[in-house]
Amino acid sequence: MASDAEIRAMRRAIEVAARGLPTALPNPVVGCVLLDEAGTVVAEGWHERAGGPHAEVAALNAAGGRARGTTAVVTLEPCDHTGRTGPCSEALIAAGVSRVVIAVPDPTDTAGGGAQRLREAGIEVEIGVLEDEAVQGLEPGEGNEVWLTAVRNRRPFVTWKFAATLDGRVAAQDGTSQWITSVEARGDVHRLRAQVDTMLVGVGTVLADDPMLTVRDADGNPAGRQPLRVVADTHGRTPKDARIRGDDAPTWIATGAEVGLTADGTLDLPALMTQLYARDRRHVLLEGGPRFAGAMVEAGLVDRVIAYLAPALLGAGPNALLDAGITTITDVWRLDLLDVRRVGGDVRVLARPRARH
Amino acid sequence: MASDAEIRAMRRAIEVAARGLPTALPNPVVGCVLLDEAGTVVAEGWHERAGGPHAEVAALNAAGGRARGTTAVVTLEPCDHTGRTGPCSEALIAAGVSRVVIAVPDPTDTAGGGAQRLREAGIEVEIGVLEDEAVQGLEPGEGNEVWLTAVRNRRPFVTWKFAATLDGRVAAQDGTSQWITSVEARGDVHRLRAQVDTMLVGVGTVLADDPMLTVRDADGNPAGRQPLRVVADTHGRTPKDARIRGDDAPTWIATGAEVGLTADGTLDLPALMTQLYARDRRHVLLEGGPRFAGAMVEAGLVDRVIAYLAPALLGAGPNALLDAGITTITDVWRLDLLDVRRVGGDVRVLARPRARH
Repeated sequence: MASDAEIRAMRRAIEVAARGLPTALPNPVVGCVLLDEAGTVVAEGWHERAGGPHAEVAALNAAGGRARGTTAVVTLEPCDHTGRTGPCSEALIAAGVSRVVIAVPDPTDTAGGGAQRLREAGIEVEIGVLEDEAVQGLEPGEGNEVWLTAVRNRRPFVTWKFAATLDGRVAAQDGTSQWITSVEARGDVHRLRAQVDTMLVGVGTVLADDPMLTVRDADGNPAGRQPLRVVADTHGRTPKDARIRGDDAPTWIATGAEVGLTADGTLDLPALMTQLYARDRRHVLLEGGPRFAGAMVEAGLVDRVIAYLAPALLGAGPNALLDAGITTITDVWRLDLLDVRRVGGDVRVLARPRARH
Repeated sequence: MASDAEIRAMRRAIEVAARGLPTALPNPVVGCVLLDEAGTVVAEGWHERAGGPHAEVAALNAAGGRARGTTAVVTLEPCDHTGRTGPCSEALIAAGVSRVVIAVPDPTDTAGGGAQRLREAGIEVEIGVLEDEAVQGLEPGEGNEVWLTAVRNRRPFVTWKFAATLDGRVAAQDGTSQWITSVEARGDVHRLRAQVDTMLVGVGTVLADDPMLTVRDADGNPAGRQPLRVVADTHGRTPKDARIRGDDAPTWIATGAEVGLTADGTLDLPALMTQLYARDRRHVLLEGGPRFAGAMVEAGLVDRVIAYLAPALLGAGPNALLDAGITTITDVWRLDLLDVRRVGGDVRVLARPRARH
């Protein structure tokens, strides 16, 4: 049984873990809090970036000699392998930690097994404390669900984002769409882009809108680490001077020749996902257009939906989603609401598709 | 200056006024609280139905002799005319009330003037206390905005309700739509229907869905007062055996021959509204379909939008709104969000269209 102090510490560990959201990928976000026997916080740490110290090591470093005899409260099972840094299991043993409280077991073959190693060293280990909160995050969508789902499926987690009017239009009849949503909603999208490692669009969006797909600050300048920009471009139609080919961020024009084709001649989307995973990509933000989103939905490759809905009406123009392979209401693709809130003058809906079939 | 006790009493008066929502039309909802000199509540009253006692009279009746010397706190200016009941102004004077605090002035020629009559009788009158709350309601949409807007415009207030998926579809590609939203959302619609005096659909909806358009309880049986069902039916195509012609509620098949036609041969919608107002109708619930809603939006005849959005995706099928006369993004019809909340597993958005042009 975890004590009240340990549960409070786990909540704090989940909170500090989320600081790694913009930087930790392809690694998980992890937080660690060290408690003394009285339940007082001795030190805390979080994982900032691949190659940097893991959360446990960051906390142990902060504690120094005071780590001996503490309880380590950590959001993800400590790793048991040597990558760019040594195994956290050994670091905890060496520091003299007496008990380890874990939210989520590590599902990977390479890094898992840390709990067992700790137990073999005589350390008390408890797993599953605030597991749901660690997966979902204290703020909806800010936990380890993305990374856990990606490593389980061996393909990136896909978040589909769209901005539409209340009647579901992403542009007016003549194709104009700037701007449907508020400046606050568009700022929220840039925050979201900063939390992924990949942005994906269909070539139709490139031809229609010529987007840059960079993370930009309030002044419109490129800001921070830039995700990989991927164009699903079966026949290589991305223009040579498309803005998405610019130097501000890396770009991959994923053609059918490189990725592979399905039997009906379209881009092999599962193969695209597998290849992105092999390139260490864990979180794809799908930004359109409607027909490409339909293909991704139909292929079962959408794990989360973020809809920015402007309180506005158009009555004509393209829909947010086209041709997802659904023809009758009993086949409607249901989602579970995770969060609904106002962002600026708009409504933001966060939802998770239910398993299909 | 209204005292703290008077402001608290006004909030309570707005709260009890809302009890009249399902029954008071074509009259406004009104609440009244009587306070003694110490600011203690002596009695309260609300207006239940046309022909029944007004809120002030209900409160005076409840107070009896204790009404003398009280302050009457009332959400709408007391009437000064004899309709089916006598003028409230005279009742307040006769009861010996010493001060009257009012939220909203009465905008009508027939009933207005109560404040002046009270002042002429030597009673202190204050107007405008919590006016916004009385108009909007403590719960969004449950104040006197509907009635005030209707009498100002001399046409019914129109609430357009639709239920759609996140991608804006009101039915699947094959026309099936039962059910997009949750049982809780559909129950909320029946609560909404019980607050209007008129339900309006285009004949296309009658031909496609053959709806009953009655207010039903949880068991699906007709419940309470039934609004007038109106079919906008230019060419009289409503079938003889349509369920909307059933005995459970009154029905008006509004044809072009009866209502009038525009120059391009469509039903004269402003004339329809004027005729509904002449029939003492103050609140129309517009329930579809998409093309008729588009015509109402284009005619500027929608005063409030209630969207029930299911977290679900279709990717094909009719949109919530069609052909509202908007072709480019700069002409998008903006609304202001009044309320966003979860209803069952769905999202309910309440919004007010901004004035156009």
